[in-house]
Amino acid sequence: MEINNLKRSILLKAKLAKEASKKLASVGTDQKNDILFAIVDALERNIKKILSCNELDVLTAKETGIPSILIDRLTLTEERVAGIINGIKNVIHLQDPVGAVIEGPNPPVGLDIKKIRVPLGVIAMIYEARPSVTVDATVLCLKAGNAVILKGGSEAINSNKILAEIIYNAGIGAGMPEGSLQFIDTMDRGAVYELLQLDNLIDLLIPRGSEELVRFIKTNSLIPVLSHGKGLCHTYVDKDADIEMAINIAINAKCQRPSVCNAMETLLVHREIADKILPKLCKLYYDAKVEIRGCEMTGSIVSSISTATEKDWQTEYLDLKISIKVVNSLEEAISHINKYGSMHSEAIVTNNKEVADKFISKVDAAAVFVNASTRLHDGSVFGLGCEIGISTQKLHARGTMGIKELTSTKYVVRGKGTIRT
Amino acid sequence: MEINNLKRSILLKAKLAKEASKKLASVGTDQKNDILFAIVDALERNIKKILSCNELDVLTAKETGIPSILIDRLTLTEERVAGIINGIKNVIHLQDPVGAVIEGPNPPVGLDIKKIRVPLGVIAMIYEARPSVTVDATVLCLKAGNAVILKGGSEAINSNKILAEIIYNAGIGAGMPEGSLQFIDTMDRGAVYELLQLDNLIDLLIPRGSEELVRFIKTNSLIPVLSHGKGLCHTYVDKDADIEMAINIAINAKCQRPSVCNAMETLLVHREIADKILPKLCKLYYDAKVEIRGCEMTGSIVSSISTATEKDWQTEYLDLKISIKVVNSLEEAISHINKYGSMHSEAIVTNNKEVADKFISKVDAAAVFVNASTRLHDGSVFGLGCEIGISTQKLHARGTMGIKELTSTKYVVRGKGTIRT
Repeated sequence: MEINNLKRSILLKAKLAKEASKKLASVGTDQKNDILFAIVDALERNIKKILSCNELDVLTAKETGIPSILIDRLTLTEERVAGIINGIKNVIHLQDPVGAVIEGPNPPVGLDIKKIRVPLGVIAMIYEARPSVTVDATVLCLKAGNAVILKGGSEAINSNKILAEIIYNAGIGAGMPEGSLQFIDTMDRGAVYELLQLDNLIDLLIPRGSEELVRFIKTNSLIPVLSHGKGLCHTYVDKDADIEMAINIAINAKCQRPSVCNAMETLLVHREIADKILPKLCKLYYDAKVEIRGCEMTGSIVSSISTATEKDWQTEYLDLKISIKVVNSLEEAISHINKYGSMHSEAIVTNNKEVADKFISKVDAAAVFVNASTRLHDGSVFGLGCEIGISTQKLHARGTMGIKELTSTKYVVRGKGTIRT
Repeated sequence: MEINNLKRSILLKAKLAKEASKKLASVGTDQKNDILFAIVDALERNIKKILSCNELDVLTAKETGIPSILIDRLTLTEERVAGIINGIKNVIHLQDPVGAVIEGPNPPVGLDIKKIRVPLGVIAMIYEARPSVTVDATVLCLKAGNAVILKGGSEAINSNKILAEIIYNAGIGAGMPEGSLQFIDTMDRGAVYELLQLDNLIDLLIPRGSEELVRFIKTNSLIPVLSHGKGLCHTYVDKDADIEMAINIAINAKCQRPSVCNAMETLLVHREIADKILPKLCKLYYDAKVEIRGCEMTGSIVSSISTATEKDWQTEYLDLKISIKVVNSLEEAISHINKYGSMHSEAIVTNNKEVADKFISKVDAAAVFVNASTRLHDGSVFGLGCEIGISTQKLHARGTMGIKELTSTKYVVRGKGTIRT
């Protein structure tokens, strides 16, 4: 698209979204739920269409030879679509955050101060290959009274387009203000740059993708950003771990869905338990076709694995690969995690409460798991309906983000002619 | 200072702050309160010294001819220092936010999920002429377990320096980890730029000052920013207002301390009540030496005022100046406010509940006041101890910010070998 046309087209979409957001802010809960019910219904009626558009994307992706982890993220199945639809049903049952009174200040006599939740306004989602984001992000934004602008990855263009179209038409039919969902269908990367300039129209940017994408966005925009960066997650098996439990968790965290951000990348094992767990665990990894890269000590316990280098500790494989390190102490595990981790999801397996508490307190991450798999770090598992992503920053929202994180607040102060003295 | 030396010096301070923040994160509530008590004590013992350093700043400022509103912001008096010290005492009594369990998700059976507050880490304050910020910011950061880097305005250098020195020494004497407070005493503006580059060491930037300062900071840094921008605040006197109450509020909002961000700049008056209120109110403004700029209708009711231009509606005077506009309806008032306001503090005077509710819901601002003065938008009035500023953005914190807004969160998840299925 010619640059000026692109600029105009993006500006128009953002303006329409802003107008819609003003109307959406006062749409009541029942009406919003009606809109979501209509979306559920329309998606259910159109599963076949969605799957064939997705098949087209997957075929094209395979032809261009993109990595298998991206293919996995891109692929929709009947089961996955059912999961997405189920997420919407969960969101319908969530309490409407808008207007809710939240823990506020303790003001002096004579002044009634309430802090209430209000919508943010316009949220722009910039994401890569996962078409499920199109649905999850839209329904969460709508329930929280926000308009949404979607810019998905070009690999998923057909899937995203059909999903956005089904959602929009169903929403409008059920009373959604026009313009509430803006889908950017150009594959021109300049579209993202144009979005980033509109700090007077867009209230929040949520990028989900590579570190490069997030950095590009932060560097080129004054709009607040909630970034969903990489997940370089660890599991530490303490010397006081239950071995069977540790093996179960280590297998689940690596193998259950390796292409996603909460999958484990590095396993840390206390040296006093290493020879009791590693032979059996590595055999299971081997059976599951996981490629293992171990430290020297790991190599001395399990033969025929390749040696991990510095680069391995820094790598988010997102694949059936794992790095394993034997550590001398809890402290060494914590300091490895705080050095190489991405402050996403970190787990310990131990029966020692004191060790667990120290791990919880010293590991700097959005979520810390004791005797549980990092794969559980997810909005639907956490009871948030579905999720808009997992924030890896510390401000506004940290960890899995649900509907409340898509709101701002407003102080409402009622006096009786009260003045400052 | 030579650029490389400046860079090294700022980097060192940030590194020391980061180290300190790790220790501060696990300092208990009692110890933190002891530190704050020691600071109170030291400030009380040194009031004379503080006032003479401040006098030096004020004298220099007057010589260089800076505007009187900046002189007012800069000036400390015995009473103002007592107010600052009182703020610390309030902070001592506040509950420690660190470790507090906040409203979390509703997880499935078998998983214990808590969302707890944790310190942010290192907070850099970049502010202009108000020396009180040196104290308020430091004690709030400390109570929330954060290290703080202070870069105040050069006009207040002597005041800030003595305050930081007294606080630091008292804190260290009471067990504060070394390095917890870093004071940047160079007047080199390059110091700010160097701070902005340290996104791996600094977790949050809080600029308090002009729009230009805030924009410069957002443009030049990847660090999250909580900005405290301008306050272009309105008071709308509805046709159903109590006239005496409206006059009291309008006088207080303009005159009680005109140099601060929550002071009123523009008064909007419904035309059905304009001739009942404006003559008396303008007489009082005149007596208080307030310069009035009115719309045409205002001029027809009150003679000998100058005519307001478009620029007046856009101006945050921060001075004994006011613009007055007569409006035809509530809707006109709301749309004027949403067009020209800075989403800071907005007030309505009315006895009509329906009108008040519409104003609350349609005005987009951090705080909306009914029958109360915008000057009340303040952490100490709101019961937050003291405040670190008033956020004019929608993310993380909106409106007056206290101690909770200086924390992040962490999910702590305890399972029994729980995995994702």
